[in-house]
Amino acid sequence: MNIEKKVNNKAFEIIKMPEKLKSQIKKMAEIRTEVSSLGEFGLIDHLTKNNEIKNASTVLTVGDDAAVLDHFGKQVVVTTDMLVEGIHFDLMYTPLKHLGYKSVIVNLSDIYAMNATPAQITMSLAFSNRFSVEALDEFYEGVYIACNKYNVDLVGGDTTSSQKGFIICVTAIGEVASAKFVTRSTAKKGDLICVTGDLGGAFLGLTLLEREKKVYLETKGVQPDLENQDYIIGRILKPEARKDIIEFFAVEELMPTSMIDISDGLSSEILHICKQSEVGCVLYEEKIPVSDLSRQFAYKLELDPTACSLSGGEDYELLFTIDQKDYEKIAANGEISIIGHITGKEEGSIIITKGGNKYPVIAQGWNALRD
Amino acid sequence: MNIEKKVNNKAFEIIKMPEKLKSQIKKMAEIRTEVSSLGEFGLIDHLTKNNEIKNASTVLTVGDDAAVLDHFGKQVVVTTDMLVEGIHFDLMYTPLKHLGYKSVIVNLSDIYAMNATPAQITMSLAFSNRFSVEALDEFYEGVYIACNKYNVDLVGGDTTSSQKGFIICVTAIGEVASAKFVTRSTAKKGDLICVTGDLGGAFLGLTLLEREKKVYLETKGVQPDLENQDYIIGRILKPEARKDIIEFFAVEELMPTSMIDISDGLSSEILHICKQSEVGCVLYEEKIPVSDLSRQFAYKLELDPTACSLSGGEDYELLFTIDQKDYEKIAANGEISIIGHITGKEEGSIIITKGGNKYPVIAQGWNALRD
Repeated sequence: MNIEKKVNNKAFEIIKMPEKLKSQIKKMAEIRTEVSSLGEFGLIDHLTKNNEIKNASTVLTVGDDAAVLDHFGKQVVVTTDMLVEGIHFDLMYTPLKHLGYKSVIVNLSDIYAMNATPAQITMSLAFSNRFSVEALDEFYEGVYIACNKYNVDLVGGDTTSSQKGFIICVTAIGEVASAKFVTRSTAKKGDLICVTGDLGGAFLGLTLLEREKKVYLETKGVQPDLENQDYIIGRILKPEARKDIIEFFAVEELMPTSMIDISDGLSSEILHICKQSEVGCVLYEEKIPVSDLSRQFAYKLELDPTACSLSGGEDYELLFTIDQKDYEKIAANGEISIIGHITGKEEGSIIITKGGNKYPVIAQGWNALRD
Repeated sequence: MNIEKKVNNKAFEIIKMPEKLKSQIKKMAEIRTEVSSLGEFGLIDHLTKNNEIKNASTVLTVGDDAAVLDHFGKQVVVTTDMLVEGIHFDLMYTPLKHLGYKSVIVNLSDIYAMNATPAQITMSLAFSNRFSVEALDEFYEGVYIACNKYNVDLVGGDTTSSQKGFIICVTAIGEVASAKFVTRSTAKKGDLICVTGDLGGAFLGLTLLEREKKVYLETKGVQPDLENQDYIIGRILKPEARKDIIEFFAVEELMPTSMIDISDGLSSEILHICKQSEVGCVLYEEKIPVSDLSRQFAYKLELDPTACSLSGGEDYELLFTIDQKDYEKIAANGEISIIGHITGKEEGSIIITKGGNKYPVIAQGWNALRD
């Protein structure tokens, strides 16, 4: 078994689970510098000593009561997310570097979902005394890799103690030309419904990691079977945000009529758009993009790939609606799938299965109603 | 004993501890709506249904992937703070309404410390299932009171589960005319060192609450002795941010040469200014403002009021330096005390006691070196 291949952009490796466990345990037990030996301000200095500013809009960064930004007449877009150990992630199979990376990405995804460009983040952490400076360094390594890749500045934050577990709160700030932002509430009848990339992979990756964790804990010495599953594991441990799509919109002078990022599953997100825009929708099951690797693994587990796409979250793809006049430009982009269209509110939110049956789109519950 | 008097601005009452405990227990056990009955999105709708927008710069608020702000050419100031149950607050003696209020205030204080005006906040919460919708309502009531009082909009956030305890992460965003912000790093030799309000009260209030909690837990039926201590209890449970001082600077056309808010105690904060500005300082013990109520209570506990001011935190007053030419304007403001002056770096950071002795200013440790 060799899964030590590079995933996605070669910046990270998906490590064998027992190796990862050993490494995490080592980081937390053997080679460790106590956070208390640096103190809060020493720790902040240590964690931000290589922090480089990339945006002209970052006037003043870490080290004062607050950061100062100058977006030069553009509008400012702000989002925040909290990630809690044991709720949002399991450190047994989540390398801290990946976690740092992902905690940035999930917030950038929200900024892109506004058709805006992220420029700054703040990073607040609470952690118990089982975390060493080395462990935090590993986390911040992932944070900085994400910041560099997406051209975002880390401009502030807070580090504090927790009684239990690791808690991450990121705020991302972006910029958008006046009135160019796209909300969830402006989809209109007849618009195309589009989704980027493919769906369901992150949910399947999580399912695999949970299964192998269970096997590993129950059967000492058994190596987890993660072979050939780099794709879905990469989707859950190291998601990307769709910077490329926002750049494509700018180049092609496209303005989606509504947009949202897919963090809770396609069903939940399309229902947000329909509710806030006061419209209905028709989705076609056969149009929903699922990668072959996800599909194969779903069948192996006897899961329905469509259900994984509709109800499985954390893919961080973009779901948007756009006027039919833009069909050709959209269809020419291989990263975008047209999966349906917007209807009147009175028509409800419908999915048409491959077999031709119609079902209402239901957040989280659609799977149980499957024929 | 009757301590049910209004504290500070009559918006809150400091409640008898046993009454408060009973009320908190009732909120958490008897009259409770499970958060799960609303779901995440239902909960957000519920908590933000009366959220009114007060700033023209708030273009789009809660309910989308991100908020959109337009500061119309001004610079944007950002700060964030995380508050963790058991580390930063004890729900045994902290009413949730006060906690909501304070969690906003501590962030606004950082914005004022930049000479900026707060305009928006985001509020992220993680809480275990012992928190009911009613408990969260009480917390948000305090949040909204602070927002209304300081003219700030709640524009986003996140609500999620925690495995243990209540975790709050607030990000505050403010605005400042280009190049009017004040940092910690620009104090210069000869400047006056000034502090607003009075110091040490919050630390003494906390000491009192901790003592009475201990007595109450050890001796059933004994009423806590909080009589005549509204002032110091108010300082810890319901601090205010110094909006008035920033407004005074604007009206009087004053620009401090450096500024910081006092969250960790005067010693720690003046050392930040000295380190980041590469200067030294002389403070005069007799000039450090301590209220009579704080002083009396300190003596009762055989604590040194000056030590409480230097090392006790959470007063959320402003510490700033300003050019000597502004002496008269500053001296005319009864809310500002001039406590020393900036010297050369080579002279170190010194405090001169009432007895005429000189000691180095040491963060947290000064008390132990007291003569």
